[in-house]
Amino acid sequence: MKKVIYLDNNATTKVDPEVLDAMLPFLRDSYGNPSSIHSFGGNIGRDIDKARQNVADLVGAENDYEIVFTGTGTESDNLALLGTVAYYKEKNHIITTRVEHPAILSLCKKLERDGYRVTYVPVDREGNLDVEMLRDTVNDDTAIVSVMYANNETGVINPVEEIGAFLKERGIQFHIDAVQGAGKMSLDVNKFHCNLLSLSAHKFHGPKGIGALYVRRGTRMRPILHGGHQEKGRRPGTENVAGIVGMGKAAELALKHLPDEKRVRMLRDKLENGILKAFKNSHLNGDKEKRVPNTTNIGFEYIEGEAILLYLDERRIAASSGSACSSGSLEPSHVLRAMGVPFTSAHGSIRFSLSRFNIEEEIDYVLSVMPEVVNKLLEISPYWDNEKQEGKPISI
Amino acid sequence: MKKVIYLDNNATTKVDPEVLDAMLPFLRDSYGNPSSIHSFGGNIGRDIDKARQNVADLVGAENDYEIVFTGTGTESDNLALLGTVAYYKEKNHIITTRVEHPAILSLCKKLERDGYRVTYVPVDREGNLDVEMLRDTVNDDTAIVSVMYANNETGVINPVEEIGAFLKERGIQFHIDAVQGAGKMSLDVNKFHCNLLSLSAHKFHGPKGIGALYVRRGTRMRPILHGGHQEKGRRPGTENVAGIVGMGKAAELALKHLPDEKRVRMLRDKLENGILKAFKNSHLNGDKEKRVPNTTNIGFEYIEGEAILLYLDERRIAASSGSACSSGSLEPSHVLRAMGVPFTSAHGSIRFSLSRFNIEEEIDYVLSVMPEVVNKLLEISPYWDNEKQEGKPISI
Repeated sequence: MKKVIYLDNNATTKVDPEVLDAMLPFLRDSYGNPSSIHSFGGNIGRDIDKARQNVADLVGAENDYEIVFTGTGTESDNLALLGTVAYYKEKNHIITTRVEHPAILSLCKKLERDGYRVTYVPVDREGNLDVEMLRDTVNDDTAIVSVMYANNETGVINPVEEIGAFLKERGIQFHIDAVQGAGKMSLDVNKFHCNLLSLSAHKFHGPKGIGALYVRRGTRMRPILHGGHQEKGRRPGTENVAGIVGMGKAAELALKHLPDEKRVRMLRDKLENGILKAFKNSHLNGDKEKRVPNTTNIGFEYIEGEAILLYLDERRIAASSGSACSSGSLEPSHVLRAMGVPFTSAHGSIRFSLSRFNIEEEIDYVLSVMPEVVNKLLEISPYWDNEKQEGKPISI
Repeated sequence: MKKVIYLDNNATTKVDPEVLDAMLPFLRDSYGNPSSIHSFGGNIGRDIDKARQNVADLVGAENDYEIVFTGTGTESDNLALLGTVAYYKEKNHIITTRVEHPAILSLCKKLERDGYRVTYVPVDREGNLDVEMLRDTVNDDTAIVSVMYANNETGVINPVEEIGAFLKERGIQFHIDAVQGAGKMSLDVNKFHCNLLSLSAHKFHGPKGIGALYVRRGTRMRPILHGGHQEKGRRPGTENVAGIVGMGKAAELALKHLPDEKRVRMLRDKLENGILKAFKNSHLNGDKEKRVPNTTNIGFEYIEGEAILLYLDERRIAASSGSACSSGSLEPSHVLRAMGVPFTSAHGSIRFSLSRFNIEEEIDYVLSVMPEVVNKLLEISPYWDNEKQEGKPISI
């Protein structure tokens, strides 16, 4: 099997071999339960503590106690919001954005059904959040504001420092879904003034099935799962030891490799500029500057994004039409719609998301096959054909 | 490091090397996201389907659609109860037992705080459930009955077939926490007439961080987490692919090795009979017959269970004083208290739980060191000393 050119790192990432090496002892001989009295299990608590410290370091937390391990980024997001509104029972208002991940948006829809009022702050054509409106909509009934650090589809970064400083002054709980930030940018919960911040290991070369929630000391919330004493009762259930250790190692490596993101940005820019220059029917979705370095979202007029992906797949190139979490649905991306990207163009959008494991030869290869793919699809496109036949100005 | 004699398999189990072998490809090259459109990720859906079928086979489910993967047994239990009461909003009564795992008991305490009425059905001195009382307490307001298949501390098996048949007739939802049953006994959701059944992979030689909930087709419930479309919306979040594949392989092996439980029972009985015969201050906790084959819970008068465990630990023998989930607490076991075991005796109780990886030499070694351990502790026991000095009849 020919090696895959993997450009879908916002969906999930390769487990770093060093991460797997760190995990293996806990999938082999060190299989004890850290809650056990005997040293065979009990000693494993130290390995968990070390991983907790590594994750704390990744987000600039002062105390490893502030890290709660969960099963997924989705669970972290759910724990943050459900846990907060369960504590602040007298407050009935939640603020989020129109471009959040389904883990927040589906949850907010459920909370609306439960009687909460949710404000979905809009974004502009470049995906930049209307911070002024966010500020204006905050009121004494607001239990929590949840804003993603970076958008999974476009990579656009939100001004969380500014939002956090404002909310801190107002005394409002602030949650950041930083699932798409970790490993790509330097994260600092103190700069962000957030109470809660979600992470998912498999987005930064850790294993799937393990997430974390940063909970600032003193933050009031309730657990969503009930059971044993694990994670100090904040998330009961036998610890996923191998997963936790893997997340700790991935966090350590993410910090270490942060300077590599310059190279990732260079590769991303080469890919993006190459495509935008080659195809006049293409355009960038999302702010060109305020973006994580690994992501580009490109719209193509007259052709289907999914068709591009299938042709790329035949050539062993893995990319995405949006978030993996909503693929399979015929709905165009809610993110692009919120940005006001027209329906047809949103349907023709694809996302390339890189990682430190990508090399320049891969980008060159993608650029070399794109003309064949795009032209083949333009040839069979009824829209493209119509435009030509009706003598309208064409964009290529 | 001398090899550990691991007799704490109700806390967690060794990952079967075959299970790890099945997982490794998904921690190495097959790291795609199963929700992706590209084949690199999308094809992984087939591996998940196969694992789902293996887990369905383990519990006798008719359709793999009936298996929902979760992060832990605790999450499965929480999803079962919270999901059911969220659907049956008009019903306000829950029935469970006094000897459930904290994943059920802590949850029921929370539900009581939320206004639900919970009946905790008692057990007798042998740990056998008062099924008559359970029947009598069922009423039209009962949303769900949750009964564990086998107790984690004593191994005592509940008559779930009988309970299930009764509840089915009454049209009441029935959940079984079978976390301690899988891999030890043959499970059959149709014989049990249950709607819901919880499993945890790490209790039957699978990895930690992955659980499952059997949900009978047609069962009405709501999810507790909200997000993407994974697990058909019943448990959103990127799938823990390696964990799921590991659980599938562990389920396949559990079925295959079920006949080995005869050998496990033989070893357990040798250990149990050896100890009960050697120490007149010892007694069995729990019904001798209606038990899973791997578990024995033995109470010692006059000495502390935790002290026995520490001495055994020095000799590289891993056992437990009860459930790992409540160890560290000074409270004596809620299970033994519910059985009416006196406080002092409950404090002197230890659990040995075996697996198919134990061998007879290990049991012989434990039997050979127990006299030294128990006699040393009796020597320093103030209770024991008092009994001797006061001329009371002594039991050894």
